[in-house]
Amino acid sequence: MQSNRRNFFTTLAGGAIGGALLPSFGMPISEEENRRYEKLDKVLKEPVLKKELFSTPIIIKEVNLLVHEGNFICKVLSEDGQVGISVSNNIRMHYLYPILTKRVAPFFVGKDARELDKLIEEVYTYKSNYKMQSYAVWVPVATVEFAILDLLGRIANKPITQLIGDTHNKKVGVYQANNFRGKSPEESLEGIKKQVEETQSKALKFKVAGRMGDKDLPEGRSEQLIPMVRKAFGDEMVIYADANGGYDVKEAIRIGKLMQENKFDFFEEPVPFDWYEETKQVKDKLSVPIAGGEQEGSMHNFRWLLGNNGLDIVQPDIFYFGGMIRSMKVAKMAHALGKPCVPHISGSGLGYLYMMHFVSALPNAGPYHEFKGFNNTIPFECKTSDLKVKDGKIDVPTGPGLAIDIEQSYIDKHKKVTTL
Amino acid sequence: MQSNRRNFFTTLAGGAIGGALLPSFGMPISEEENRRYEKLDKVLKEPVLKKELFSTPIIIKEVNLLVHEGNFICKVLSEDGQVGISVSNNIRMHYLYPILTKRVAPFFVGKDARELDKLIEEVYTYKSNYKMQSYAVWVPVATVEFAILDLLGRIANKPITQLIGDTHNKKVGVYQANNFRGKSPEESLEGIKKQVEETQSKALKFKVAGRMGDKDLPEGRSEQLIPMVRKAFGDEMVIYADANGGYDVKEAIRIGKLMQENKFDFFEEPVPFDWYEETKQVKDKLSVPIAGGEQEGSMHNFRWLLGNNGLDIVQPDIFYFGGMIRSMKVAKMAHALGKPCVPHISGSGLGYLYMMHFVSALPNAGPYHEFKGFNNTIPFECKTSDLKVKDGKIDVPTGPGLAIDIEQSYIDKHKKVTTL
Repeated sequence: MQSNRRNFFTTLAGGAIGGALLPSFGMPISEEENRRYEKLDKVLKEPVLKKELFSTPIIIKEVNLLVHEGNFICKVLSEDGQVGISVSNNIRMHYLYPILTKRVAPFFVGKDARELDKLIEEVYTYKSNYKMQSYAVWVPVATVEFAILDLLGRIANKPITQLIGDTHNKKVGVYQANNFRGKSPEESLEGIKKQVEETQSKALKFKVAGRMGDKDLPEGRSEQLIPMVRKAFGDEMVIYADANGGYDVKEAIRIGKLMQENKFDFFEEPVPFDWYEETKQVKDKLSVPIAGGEQEGSMHNFRWLLGNNGLDIVQPDIFYFGGMIRSMKVAKMAHALGKPCVPHISGSGLGYLYMMHFVSALPNAGPYHEFKGFNNTIPFECKTSDLKVKDGKIDVPTGPGLAIDIEQSYIDKHKKVTTL
Repeated sequence: MQSNRRNFFTTLAGGAIGGALLPSFGMPISEEENRRYEKLDKVLKEPVLKKELFSTPIIIKEVNLLVHEGNFICKVLSEDGQVGISVSNNIRMHYLYPILTKRVAPFFVGKDARELDKLIEEVYTYKSNYKMQSYAVWVPVATVEFAILDLLGRIANKPITQLIGDTHNKKVGVYQANNFRGKSPEESLEGIKKQVEETQSKALKFKVAGRMGDKDLPEGRSEQLIPMVRKAFGDEMVIYADANGGYDVKEAIRIGKLMQENKFDFFEEPVPFDWYEETKQVKDKLSVPIAGGEQEGSMHNFRWLLGNNGLDIVQPDIFYFGGMIRSMKVAKMAHALGKPCVPHISGSGLGYLYMMHFVSALPNAGPYHEFKGFNNTIPFECKTSDLKVKDGKIDVPTGPGLAIDIEQSYIDKHKKVTTL
């Protein structure tokens, strides 16, 4: 495929920046930092999609977005009449759909699906989409990517996992997230206990701080709750805490030290997501692992956070970050530095299924992954997994593509979206 | 107005970060940097809207988005029956409208318009809108803000300029931007000459590089064109060049040196907008002023770029950055460091009118401002300016609010937008 683009972001830029960051270009960086960037840039040059599985072009003929009662389906049709389907992130798509139909879908029509790595890179600059870098453009891109991966998986007779990597995990360990902000420490603990009892999970995550600068209510809630949770569940329980960017540096360090004393397993988003330097400042002062990346839309910012050793655990959201291929690049960058990936997953539609395929392909998956429950409104059959949590784990389905078959009569109820 | 938020981003965070950046928090910073951050954080605490002009509450009753043949009008109605109107950034709004109607407008209903500074801060976290930080959320916010400012201006009988600052500039000098990428240096120069002749402008800006990593075509175009433009227009002409994030650090420095030799007046977006550290690296190596900020959605990133002396000229786009109040904060931060503001303005609807009100209120306006032509499809009357370019300048209108009256029969053709 001809391209009018230099291989700017994954090759030239990688190389050039590697070079550009040498002391001669102004900002001297340490040998250690340079070695890290070399590893990251090597990873960014590696392909993700296994093109070699496909011997002939798979030209995309149509990309359609359909809706029925708040459920958005993306349907991709190839010139040869093959079909791929994804269910979108419905809680976002109901206000992003014109971005998908006007700014994303048209780009893919007429392209060879085997070039997906390159297409995902190019849709970023198509119609200057980079100007809205955030999930506003990336959720639409991910939605189309998932449908294309389903199409490719059906053609290759392989699950998505094996299109973007190898099967490293046949089961995925899950933790159930919760949100009891605003409730007293005692009431919060009761809620967490009840949930852990119901799901028999071996890991839990709870919210601390107030989201992005909201007040931590009732006052002092977080610092009381942190030791209470450890005490209630004992030393064996894996415990994560999520501040949703609610602290400044000083407070994040103070609260993070409390987490350390209570042997917490990670501290997510201690400061707002766009406080890059401050995220590193917090990490430098704490031994509890710092996790982040849910809101990040920029590959370059992930590269900075890793190159500067500003994060211990990367958490791209496969929808918010624009799909499996981009998220895999982040996971592989982290892997190159010996760090795990624990993807964030936004909870609607079939998000948990996409999460499972992605985690299955990770060589550096964390032990437990975010899980916000099953979606029971979409009727489908899965022949290769009962999709139940057993002993804290779910079997990853292994059928072709997304590895499920959505009831045709349900799909047929969906109508093409209309826009102004 | 009660608030559940700490004054996190403009006060506490400012203070805390000022403190947090002291060497004891990990990343030592220089005295000079610390002094810069102190100045920036002082500015961030200052109010923008002159609340004191309004003695009684102005409660927002309705915020409606209307459309007619691709023109989007936002109409704000107060409890007292007063009306404010804005015209949106139409080339963006046709795919962002559900974000405005579902994620932005509902927040403002029932609020006191006099608290606009705080409302703009709070709409960022309303429904977790921060997760799509980019123009996807900020263009809708700006559209509503402009309508509220029109309403407030009509009530106070003052132009928007005097609601957000003082009249520093009664006229606005303009430059006409152009785009001849893909054309030979000779053909590009002919186009630029023709345009300058038509507009009699005293400043010009042309495009170099390929946008965001696209190839610079025909090969070698930019480096040939740079000296040709200076030679053709002589030493008196003010010349700007815009790379749209098309270079890596090494190439930006090489091309920037050519601009220096040819006495260019600024070099815009040398590297991709989210390459913060690299933007500073380029600036550190060049004497031609580095301008940037068009794509920036984050106040904190502007603060970083200024705190680290990574930009010479700030260019928030008043639509893309979420309106006059946020953009004024950026301009004031730059002013505190003795740097000018040359706002970017996206060219559709009445963008140029908003630009003029904003620039009029800037104590640190650059001498020439981006101008992409008048919109002749919207019928309106302006009693205080003929809105013509004379001797490279336009008189800023001084009537209440936006200082124009759009024909009522035209407004009446607009219908409320519908969404899924």
